[in-house]
Amino acid sequence: MTTAIRVHLDSLSEKAPYMRVDEAAWRQAAERNAGAAAGIDVSFSEDWQGAEAALADVEVLVCQAKPPAEMVAAAPKLKWILATMAGVEKLTPLDWLPAGVSLCNNRGTHYPKTREFAGMALAMLHFQLPHLGSAQRAHAWAPKFSGLIGGKTVVVVGFGTLGQATAEAARGLGLAVRAVKRNPEPHALADQMFAADAVAEAAADADFLVCALPMTPATRNFVDGPVFDALKPGAGVVNIGRGPVMDYPALCERLDDGRISGAILDVFDPEPLPAESPLWDQKNLIVMPHMSSDDPTQYIQRTLDIFFKNLDAYRTGAPLATEIDRETMY
Amino acid sequence: MTTAIRVHLDSLSEKAPYMRVDEAAWRQAAERNAGAAAGIDVSFSEDWQGAEAALADVEVLVCQAKPPAEMVAAAPKLKWILATMAGVEKLTPLDWLPAGVSLCNNRGTHYPKTREFAGMALAMLHFQLPHLGSAQRAHAWAPKFSGLIGGKTVVVVGFGTLGQATAEAARGLGLAVRAVKRNPEPHALADQMFAADAVAEAAADADFLVCALPMTPATRNFVDGPVFDALKPGAGVVNIGRGPVMDYPALCERLDDGRISGAILDVFDPEPLPAESPLWDQKNLIVMPHMSSDDPTQYIQRTLDIFFKNLDAYRTGAPLATEIDRETMY
Repeated sequence: MTTAIRVHLDSLSEKAPYMRVDEAAWRQAAERNAGAAAGIDVSFSEDWQGAEAALADVEVLVCQAKPPAEMVAAAPKLKWILATMAGVEKLTPLDWLPAGVSLCNNRGTHYPKTREFAGMALAMLHFQLPHLGSAQRAHAWAPKFSGLIGGKTVVVVGFGTLGQATAEAARGLGLAVRAVKRNPEPHALADQMFAADAVAEAAADADFLVCALPMTPATRNFVDGPVFDALKPGAGVVNIGRGPVMDYPALCERLDDGRISGAILDVFDPEPLPAESPLWDQKNLIVMPHMSSDDPTQYIQRTLDIFFKNLDAYRTGAPLATEIDRETMY
Repeated sequence: MTTAIRVHLDSLSEKAPYMRVDEAAWRQAAERNAGAAAGIDVSFSEDWQGAEAALADVEVLVCQAKPPAEMVAAAPKLKWILATMAGVEKLTPLDWLPAGVSLCNNRGTHYPKTREFAGMALAMLHFQLPHLGSAQRAHAWAPKFSGLIGGKTVVVVGFGTLGQATAEAARGLGLAVRAVKRNPEPHALADQMFAADAVAEAAADADFLVCALPMTPATRNFVDGPVFDALKPGAGVVNIGRGPVMDYPALCERLDDGRISGAILDVFDPEPLPAESPLWDQKNLIVMPHMSSDDPTQYIQRTLDIFFKNLDAYRTGAPLATEIDRETMY
């Protein structure tokens, strides 16, 4: 008879009730994953209140932010942590994470929503919605006609969950897809793969660029002026990764002079974007308040499904499904 | 040996060169429709300059606006006219059209572009883009999250070319489609069909309404307050038909108080929308300058393909493919 695995879930009270990993959320997920959920001893806390005692035997921790040092110290048997987020840059540096403990994120959670968003955003660039937004503010009737979007080309920079969801949407619209990825092995959703150092080659004469990079030590300002200038004149740009991975001043210069015809930005640094930011009034730019990927109706349940995938791997000694590499932060 | 059919095409010089039905456009279309184009004697004019002599034997006329009375009088053998437009309300009343002469439009031309537009517009309503446009103008970070669009319901009012293209796009997004049509016979692209007098029933609790009605004597203000109020609270609305078929003051009232969460309007009366129209600044409204359907890169060639379809029917004595009913104006 195997011993039960001790799992503890901590929720942040600042989250909306349906965004917490509390007992109600757990029950719903455990019912759907009945096999994997058997043989687990589970406990819950909110804002770590009274969690120390429960943590003494814990092997696995699910939490919604960087855990306080005393909570990590109170869990000497801890083997891995699942953080309920995809971009984990807020947990860095990882000096708080004991050497033998693995960190997992919930990557994959955002796929279905991002696919819907990306299809919309590409069509919006094709139909010149950023330009039309500026025209509407000026009360100007200023159509810009074009043919069909099918047959155009998009370069997707960053090819994890968000990039792949973008590629699937782009394929659905009849676009050719070029993908930029650290390890540019062939992928079913991309017509061509490019390594990170070939990003300008990947961008050459493309109609659209979608940036879906995470924030890592290597990605700051990765999409910069030379990348924009490799695109087709009048190309459209989307950023759904993280704000600092794209050079926004360089983008705005090109929106002003028309080298880039329009942009849709969903991510900023900081967020919320301050009211005094010049981006709000930037010509041919649509500001979106970080809405491209989050589906609050399913977020926590998809996250817990990913937890159970990791748990399956943990039980069989296989590599955890969504473990973060401490060096590359992927 | 059959006699050649005399066809005359008149272009408007006010149109952009690639939007004219001139000799270059004809040659391209005739090559693609080589069988149908054989046995035709064709002539061309611009703004009817020198056309009278050519018209004396003409059976078929292709033109881009209502022909001058003297040109119709100069064509005693005329059997049918194809007007290079889908909405023919600018040709009405049809008192200028001799009793024995048929009028055809180019319906069908707009299908592929409208399908792309409709998919975008539905996703934009789902992602609350009209609200986000207002928020951006106010420099306000105001996300409104939702689940996936799949599984929602759209009611499509008017089920000709534009409505069917909308339905195909909606199906692609996983929506349920209710269609409102004069003759509500079952249609492969609709889950449910409703007659015109059941429009409120069709709209009941729907998430989205897309209006794709032509302007006819029966369609003025067809989508009005009671139709809006039948929708789900917070529903989204699109108009790609004609401005006067939707009650815009009633819509704006509901955008102001939130009963309708957002609208995308592509058609107005008059067009261009005057700079002083309050619609430009209407909360939660996106104004588009009549761009939902026109694909200038293919418009004339698709129109001429439709001409050849009509010609095939004419030769065999079958009903013309896109003939307008003088009474219903469909």
